[in-house]
Amino acid sequence: MSLQAPATVGMRLEEVDTPALVLELDAFESNIRRLGEAVAGQARVRAHAKTHKCPEIARRQIAAGAVGVCCQKVSEAEALVEGGVADVLVSNEVVGARKLERLAALARRARIGVCVDDAGNVRDLQAAAARAGATIDTYIELEVGMGRCGIAPGEPALGLARAILGSPGLRFAGLQAYHGRAQHFRSMQERREAVAGSAAVVRETKALLERHHIPCPCVTGAGSGTFMLEIESGAWDEIQPGSYVFMDRDYAKNEWAPPLPRFEHSLFVLATVMSRPRPEVAIVDAGLKASSVDSGMPAVWERPGLAYASASDEHGWVEIARGAAAPALGDKLLLVPGHCDPTVNLYDWYVCVRGGAVEALWPIAARGALF
Amino acid sequence: MSLQAPATVGMRLEEVDTPALVLELDAFESNIRRLGEAVAGQARVRAHAKTHKCPEIARRQIAAGAVGVCCQKVSEAEALVEGGVADVLVSNEVVGARKLERLAALARRARIGVCVDDAGNVRDLQAAAARAGATIDTYIELEVGMGRCGIAPGEPALGLARAILGSPGLRFAGLQAYHGRAQHFRSMQERREAVAGSAAVVRETKALLERHHIPCPCVTGAGSGTFMLEIESGAWDEIQPGSYVFMDRDYAKNEWAPPLPRFEHSLFVLATVMSRPRPEVAIVDAGLKASSVDSGMPAVWERPGLAYASASDEHGWVEIARGAAAPALGDKLLLVPGHCDPTVNLYDWYVCVRGGAVEALWPIAARGALF
Repeated sequence: MSLQAPATVGMRLEEVDTPALVLELDAFESNIRRLGEAVAGQARVRAHAKTHKCPEIARRQIAAGAVGVCCQKVSEAEALVEGGVADVLVSNEVVGARKLERLAALARRARIGVCVDDAGNVRDLQAAAARAGATIDTYIELEVGMGRCGIAPGEPALGLARAILGSPGLRFAGLQAYHGRAQHFRSMQERREAVAGSAAVVRETKALLERHHIPCPCVTGAGSGTFMLEIESGAWDEIQPGSYVFMDRDYAKNEWAPPLPRFEHSLFVLATVMSRPRPEVAIVDAGLKASSVDSGMPAVWERPGLAYASASDEHGWVEIARGAAAPALGDKLLLVPGHCDPTVNLYDWYVCVRGGAVEALWPIAARGALF
Repeated sequence: MSLQAPATVGMRLEEVDTPALVLELDAFESNIRRLGEAVAGQARVRAHAKTHKCPEIARRQIAAGAVGVCCQKVSEAEALVEGGVADVLVSNEVVGARKLERLAALARRARIGVCVDDAGNVRDLQAAAARAGATIDTYIELEVGMGRCGIAPGEPALGLARAILGSPGLRFAGLQAYHGRAQHFRSMQERREAVAGSAAVVRETKALLERHHIPCPCVTGAGSGTFMLEIESGAWDEIQPGSYVFMDRDYAKNEWAPPLPRFEHSLFVLATVMSRPRPEVAIVDAGLKASSVDSGMPAVWERPGLAYASASDEHGWVEIARGAAAPALGDKLLLVPGHCDPTVNLYDWYVCVRGGAVEALWPIAARGALF
């Protein structure tokens, strides 16, 4: 409910109040461009909006060639459609009468897809679509190695396809095949092996469907850490990268090599040094309510010898190596978040910066869109 | 900006959309009562609103005897004053011209306190108070063992007191003495030792100030894990417990013994089982954007044999022990967050429940109040 922005357009970066979520537009635009150049039309791009939660960004991804976006929650889809996005896949199961009712209502305003891994859920989804008079693109989520949601390949997947095909109001749209953990396997080799395993499951399922004369319109999945590997495998029609627009410290720990392009850090938390209690420590005003620590601490950007060592709710401990240029009280530091998605979810605004000045403020319309 | 609530008043708990932040009012009210009974007028209570970020809760704490609240950020103080709280201590340093200007403006509307640990910051604070024509209660934050902000005892603290006393518009209000890490030391003995160490620093500093004829109006500090120990030491006038209203899984791991009262879990994340991919696993719709994992995973409430094992952004893996009653697709589970403060910061509403029905919806007015 704190919708006050920490900056105004035209302000210099150093004047922005802190903590603030800063988006460096040059790097952000370069990331969008690099994705397009790497994919080069070999697959459709459906950018993942769970990362950014922002229609302004979704519109830029679509202008750069994405067919639409995906997200994880009905309330995210609502915010995106409200923000002008016409094609949204909820790349997740939606369970519960109220949620399904909202999803079906949304499918009257935009092209909406959703994933299923359970026949009872298909019945509930069909009933909601029928009540709304809506058509919903329905994807079978396959378990392809992540061990999260998803139905087993083979007969279970075939049975679910038949259930969808027998449900008026549901259009069988294909397979959701996403191996989330593989995105963060550090070596290219580990990621290649994981994607090869997922691709085998996808191919087996498509072949089974074909033997039963069920066309599979689309296989969708893949993330920022692997998408070129899915494309090279030939088993995917559509990719769902999200983090590539921002990068984060965790993704930066991956080995990056062709065919994957390198992306730049474009997302930062701007913090202020609020205490200098000892020569070797600076305390900053950005703690774990300002930069999610689930995947590790943020990194201090372009300040050699400074390391963000630990966080409490509203404070961060920045250690100053011997001989490093020490920040003074009031100095501002840019932090690279450990994990971009949950960090974005802590803010209401992107403070968009180019050449050291605030160029725009973009609302994070789906911030807190949990249900 | 998703301010939609997941429930309406009168709804049954099982109808509430998920994930939702549920406050069990009987337990919450009991926690407020138990604190009052334990303190029994031996110290003033200034409840910490960084935990709950909610004027509705602050007002109930004040009605139960608290002199006011504290918080960590100017924007939190703004939301609390806006919500009708007349006495707010920002128990933290405030650095930067824009923040100080806002703090001083607020001090014309309510009694406002703030902490300092730097003479330059005292000058900036004084200048802001002068420009606003405001008076600000100014506390010296002492380093008492936490190794975060705070000035060293002895001459540095004395010098800072003199700087405050020489600053028109600043009222020297006393000492902030808080050992945050001590709250989570597991054994009573470890916490006793930490508080004894902090108390020695406080006494030494008060004695030094007295020798220089500087009265110390108030020593404030202490949290939910130790407050009775600070009271017993006799060195504190005011305590700042926050988490006691909710409790969380991390606090529940502490040893609790007299003189500390036991508090109950009153805060929960309501989650839905959204996939049952394997007999031994249920996937719920509450991941690390729904329950902060910085202090560990949430616990599943009153469902023996179910354990929340890991989280991704929007999903949680609940492991089902052999022989345990397995939840069905669509079943709802209550989770006890690992850490209440950053979990609350993910939500816009408390869904307040009594006897299984929604009694009220309280806005989390300072959610996302970072700067």
